Amino acid sequence: MHKGRLEAFSDGVIAIIITIMVLELKVPLGHDSVRDLVPLIPTYVSYALSFVYVGIYWNNHHHTFQAVHTVNGGILWANLHLLFWLSLIPFVTSWMGENHFHKWPVIFYGIVLIMNAIAYGILIALLVRHQGEDSVLAKAIGSDLKGNISIGIYATAIIVAFFCSWVSFGLYVVVACIWFIPDRRIERRLSPEP
Amino acid sequence: MHKGRLEAFSDGVIAIIITIMVLELKVPLGHDSVRDLVPLIPTYVSYALSFVYVGIYWNNHHHTFQAVHTVNGGILWANLHLLFWLSLIPFVTSWMGENHFHKWPVIFYGIVLIMNAIAYGILIALLVRHQGEDSVLAKAIGSDLKGNISIGIYATAIIVAFFCSWVSFGLYVVVACIWFIPDRRIERRLSPEP
Amino acid sequence: MHKGRLEAFSDGVIAIIITIMVLELKVPLGHDSVRDLVPLIPTYVSYALSFVYVGIYWNNHHHTFQAVHTVNGGILWANLHLLFWLSLIPFVTSWMGENHFHKWPVIFYGIVLIMNAIAYGILIALLVRHQGEDSVLAKAIGSDLKGNISIGIYATAIIVAFFCSWVSFGLYVVVACIWFIPDRRIERRLSPEP
Amino acid sequence: MHKGRLEAFSDGVIAIIITIMVLELKVPLGHDSVRDLVPLIPTYVSYALSFVYVGIYWNNHHHTFQAVHTVNGGILWANLHLLFWLSLIPFVTSWMGENHFHKWPVIFYGIVLIMNAIAYGILIALLVRHQGEDSVLAKAIGSDLKGNISIGIYATAIIVAFFCSWVSFGLYVVVACIWFIPDRRIERRLSPEP
Repeated sequence: MHKGRLEAFSDGVIAIIITIMVLELKVPLGHDSVRDLVPLIPTYVSYALSFVYVGIYWNNHHHTFQAVHTVNGGILWANLHLLFWLSLIPFVTSWMGENHFHKWPVIFYGIVLIMNAIAYGILIALLVRHQGEDSVLAKAIGSDLKGNISIGIYATAIIVAFFCSWVSFGLYVVVACIWFIPDRRIERRLSPEP
Repeated sequence: MHKGRLEAFSDGVIAIIITIMVLELKVPLGHDSVRDLVPLIPTYVSYALSFVYVGIYWNNHHHTFQAVHTVNGGILWANLHLLFWLSLIPFVTSWMGENHFHKWPVIFYGIVLIMNAIAYGILIALLVRHQGEDSVLAKAIGSDLKGNISIGIYATAIIVAFFCSWVSFGLYVVVACIWFIPDRRIERRLSPEP
Repeated sequence: MHKGRLEAFSDGVIAIIITIMVLELKVPLGHDSVRDLVPLIPTYVSYALSFVYVGIYWNNHHHTFQAVHTVNGGILWANLHLLFWLSLIPFVTSWMGENHFHKWPVIFYGIVLIMNAIAYGILIALLVRHQGEDSVLAKAIGSDLKGNISIGIYATAIIVAFFCSWVSFGLYVVVACIWFIPDRRIERRLSPEP
Repeated sequence: MHKGRLEAFSDGVIAIIITIMVLELKVPLGHDSVRDLVPLIPTYVSYALSFVYVGIYWNNHHHTFQAVHTVNGGILWANLHLLFWLSLIPFVTSWMGENHFHKWPVIFYGIVLIMNAIAYGILIALLVRHQGEDSVLAKAIGSDLKGNISIGIYATAIIVAFFCSWVSFGLYVVVACIWFIPDRRIERRLSPEP
């Protein structure tokens, strides 16, 4: 099966997820001064972080499928599984923003991020198995150090959240920074001269 | 007429349906303990089941159209008819979730599932007629035993709901499990060596 | 300029419009009997009609662009103009449904339908001018009798609404029936043997 | 990397942005006279202006990428950055409309427009660097006079808003008129005979 519709469907879902979060931005009630926007700042900060996270996933999805040509039924479901966890990001984002980074919402934000990382790992593993261990993708991904470090930081952030949820939020920002640069491993492998 | 835009439009609508349901996930009011999430569990369960159902329809739609190249006006409308019933899934999902699987919402959930199954059957029938009885698609679909069994289970679930709506919900889960594995009949027929 | 992105963008917007209307379907408050759904029937009826109307526009858009290969800046704006009026359909639909087909909502529904018909006419005219009077499209469209009859019926429905808005609603259903069958003029012209 | 998915994803996000604004259109409470629509007029006016703005960005995006064939990681992020600011347009639109063009909402509308213009400038700059200074795109864009004039007018509008926000709104309309005609520079360069 050709990868075309899987890409188109994923693009559609991720586009909706990234814009759905805008709907969570509530219009301030007043209009007399800039101060009306101040209580909304935690919402804006969590929105911006989640925008970057969803952007990272879209970028990596895009890079990964550059090295893929056909898919099978298992990959379709692994992709849907990833989209399921991605689609929960707006939910935990607004919960976290509205509660000003209180303990539990921050913990659930971390859990959703971990589940996303695992779902992405499963998708990659199925793609590598489908393409063969000698494929461009398999070589480009390698041991996936970055993915494992991220899960480690998320887990740390969840434990830290029981004591100080702002530090956890900082750790989520750190992971976003690690991934901000798209995965050059695939770009390098695909280009004619490394 | 080429099938390209029908696929793109269906992908768009199904992507929206599957992510609209996220909007139904209401953010818990409190934030002091995990217990705030407990009353929302029925909503989450019904959301997860509907996500799987919409995913199944997208997967089968994807598989079916692998074996299709051109479409006609009737197929466009049959496809829109299917999308109409699919688009009612978020509505019955949130009604069922908010009422904690009470009788009537569970019955209507079943009716919408039956209508989806019938709409999908009509689409397949038109596609087979358009492609000819000797086409890959016609041979791959065969007598559509799985589709008929599903409608039978849905009907049973609707009747059972008058006595015990949780059993009905269980039956919906059973059908989802039957369909979880994408329709390999088409994959097999399309591959060079069966 | 190639038509590809215009089609993709239009598919996206129309897919969102057709599914946005689902969000207008409010979940009934109660759950004790089917009677809870009764006050929502006008909403459902207006939703179904609007679904058919948006479906008709998508179908005709699809058929028309089968006979088009390149576009220009003017066509992009004519298409956006059409999408603007299409995107107002969910708004007037829910206004009409919630007010149980009261006079003014029914009139505005008619105005939006007229504006859609005019916007579609402008788009077609620009496409014919871009393709030339001898093009397949120009010959297939001809004098656009169906389009003019529709505008006439809409105008009648708006006047009738001042006296009896249910008759107007009936007239909207009549136009939908006229257009339900996709525009075979183009299909016929494009096929090798007429 | 091919530009295909970047275009498809951008089309998806822009399609959602342009239709999300419809959701901001609240259905009037009454239905007895046309007068019920009067208090909603500022919302409609700001919706129409934002629709034109988003349409302009889509048109220019479309024109620009006609002259582009491949993209890199930096361009993906510059594009996401533009989509981020575009996705804030519905938010400031409804804030401005609901507050009847009061000072602060009008100022924030201007700030979002400036950020959009800057984000678009960054995207263009990265595309030109990626394609080379001798590319069709670089020659077509030239010194980007129109972009700089727009930013100047936006800045003026923001300052003016402290004294008379209606004049600012007029200035936003002026910029929309300047850009209404799609960027013919690229169309001209791409056509075989200039």
